[in-house]
Amino acid sequence: MAHINQNFEKLPGSYLFAEIARRTAEYKEAHPDADIIRLGIGDVTLPLIPAVRQAMHEAVDEQADAATFKGYGPYEGYDFLREAIAEHDFAARGVDVEPNEIFISDGAKSDCGNIVDLFALENKVAVCDPVYPVYVDSNALAGRAGEYDVDAEMWTDIYYMPTTAENGFCPALPLEDVDLIYLCSPNNPTGTVLTHDQLKMWVDYANDHDAIILFDAAYERFITEEGALHSIYEVEGAKSCAIEFRSFSKTAGFTGMRCGCTVIPECLVRQGQSLNEMWMRRQSTKFNGASYIIQKGAAAIYTPEGHRQVEESLDYYRENARVIKEGLEDAGLEVYGAVNSPYVWCKTPGGMDSWTFFGKLLDEAQVVTTPGAGFGPAGEGYIRLTAFGDAEQTKEALRRIKAIL
Amino acid sequence: MAHINQNFEKLPGSYLFAEIARRTAEYKEAHPDADIIRLGIGDVTLPLIPAVRQAMHEAVDEQADAATFKGYGPYEGYDFLREAIAEHDFAARGVDVEPNEIFISDGAKSDCGNIVDLFALENKVAVCDPVYPVYVDSNALAGRAGEYDVDAEMWTDIYYMPTTAENGFCPALPLEDVDLIYLCSPNNPTGTVLTHDQLKMWVDYANDHDAIILFDAAYERFITEEGALHSIYEVEGAKSCAIEFRSFSKTAGFTGMRCGCTVIPECLVRQGQSLNEMWMRRQSTKFNGASYIIQKGAAAIYTPEGHRQVEESLDYYRENARVIKEGLEDAGLEVYGAVNSPYVWCKTPGGMDSWTFFGKLLDEAQVVTTPGAGFGPAGEGYIRLTAFGDAEQTKEALRRIKAIL
Repeated sequence: MAHINQNFEKLPGSYLFAEIARRTAEYKEAHPDADIIRLGIGDVTLPLIPAVRQAMHEAVDEQADAATFKGYGPYEGYDFLREAIAEHDFAARGVDVEPNEIFISDGAKSDCGNIVDLFALENKVAVCDPVYPVYVDSNALAGRAGEYDVDAEMWTDIYYMPTTAENGFCPALPLEDVDLIYLCSPNNPTGTVLTHDQLKMWVDYANDHDAIILFDAAYERFITEEGALHSIYEVEGAKSCAIEFRSFSKTAGFTGMRCGCTVIPECLVRQGQSLNEMWMRRQSTKFNGASYIIQKGAAAIYTPEGHRQVEESLDYYRENARVIKEGLEDAGLEVYGAVNSPYVWCKTPGGMDSWTFFGKLLDEAQVVTTPGAGFGPAGEGYIRLTAFGDAEQTKEALRRIKAIL
Repeated sequence: MAHINQNFEKLPGSYLFAEIARRTAEYKEAHPDADIIRLGIGDVTLPLIPAVRQAMHEAVDEQADAATFKGYGPYEGYDFLREAIAEHDFAARGVDVEPNEIFISDGAKSDCGNIVDLFALENKVAVCDPVYPVYVDSNALAGRAGEYDVDAEMWTDIYYMPTTAENGFCPALPLEDVDLIYLCSPNNPTGTVLTHDQLKMWVDYANDHDAIILFDAAYERFITEEGALHSIYEVEGAKSCAIEFRSFSKTAGFTGMRCGCTVIPECLVRQGQSLNEMWMRRQSTKFNGASYIIQKGAAAIYTPEGHRQVEESLDYYRENARVIKEGLEDAGLEVYGAVNSPYVWCKTPGGMDSWTFFGKLLDEAQVVTTPGAGFGPAGEGYIRLTAFGDAEQTKEALRRIKAIL
């Protein structure tokens, strides 16, 4: 008799976005003429830049001729893309990451989920709270999370690190030993960044405890402030304790194209085994490389023209983030994130819970946001707004919010 | 301290293709003028058909405009592709597979590897011998294979089913209970197909034992004989016991594009859980959909023009397979596969072992093949040749082989 993985049954339903959709639809039905503006959207909306489209067209044309046709590509990605990433994302910032430490994939989410294959069951996992659900759910499916406590909205074997305004959105070092530590900066959902000193504290902890940091840098390209870190490898000692996930999704509009990469330094070794070699083995066993056409498109963002065009798109989103942040501050709210991130994290007024504030903004301003409680218990008392919408609609949404608060 | 998954250390090196490359290079160095012909190649070589390229160009152009730009797609794939598969690959053959039973992915290999996530550790896995290594290695990484016995070239907890000329390339029902049964037809590496009655025997076994068949149909489009099955769901009762993997790689030249699909019937339930729902949860947690551009390209093979163009490419490979089969038979060898498959499986002459025959063909005919022993102990005494090469070179290779035997 085939036995199923019973960890699937333990997973709670992912009600957050379904519940938002339900409440929005209910409002729309009661108010058919309402002009609803969605600032909860987590997906990009601007077209792909011309440089990327041109590279993809050229890549498709190459498939017309046996001489330039591409069959199976390297499991770890094409050198042209790995070298471009090493040069522009790392060497240009003075960070030594070699092309053979970079693995191209169909997206950072796949890698964040699949990385758990490398680790034994008995590791203690630490995550920030609030948190991007993939880190938790992928460990829960593997059997590393224990049981789900419905009342606490927490897994019994996961170590949760509250990450709130009270601690400056930097999780405190754990009170018990942890082995796998998920960090995300610029953070989803809070939009805040960890400073060099804060990351150094974690790198030192990981090296001291032979722990591993799983660092999600998916939003690094939104950073505008000098001194904010684009990679954990800007911190001394990180190469012996950290794996970094990077993405073309939000930075180059690739959410529907699927491309990202994972950096595993050659010197990252645990129990005598190279994690770089283990990941290569995992990918060659259970993955067959990312699409050639998509990799060619991704490489085009590293040309001077591609770089300029990407920055134009990012500036559009950055301006939206600024409009949201300043609008909410003008309305008297406490606001975090936004400066180095497409996410704006806003404290609810007067201690209101996040679903109540969500409802108020929908009912009175016809603006859809995301209740912070949906990202974990410590997200209670916040809402998340995103900068991926239309610029005029974003301005209008903030005019309405200011009018009702 | 982070603990690694120690199953990685148990995996033997995958020396087969590396060893072939090493021996070929050694020969080339000793004979720099030798005109070596490679009939061991497992990758396609013909260009993408025009219909696919046109669809991909159109999909790239859609990304130029916010109104047609595609962000995150459905985890399970776009309906246009799921519906085309349901109609042309299933309904047209009288098989009832609904679009919501079809999950689009970045390739059948990813799905074959990731499917193990759905199952508990304590399942007994059965594989054919010889076998496509992904089935075994993905289970070994998950900890379901026991220990690797270097001398036997087998894992202690895997149930191996010899699949050879002696049993007509149909594995016998197991002598002990097994839970997860991998079958592949047309088979890689043997090129042979299981008949309706043979598959019915396995479907009945699986239903009787609540086992699950993991059926790899990646090569079904090479079938030329009437009556050979293109899907396990052509067998009555299969929907309650089988998952089917399908691929665009070999059939439409997508090895470098990355697209495949997995069929999980809605009525496939074990221990009260729907495997269709479990896979949807797995994919939404650890995958973010296949690239829109690639899915548009895949859908184009189902148009009348795409269908005709794909058949032209397949006919080219089929003719190569015929040339190889007839050439080897003319040389007095026992040959299997080829008729419904791009793979030709050939018994070595006079009981020669497969590496010796490989060496003889390389030394005397300058033809590179694949030793059957590389696919498992029961592959000893065979070599595999493939139909993916150039037509003229394939003919020349067979002229040479006939001349030396």
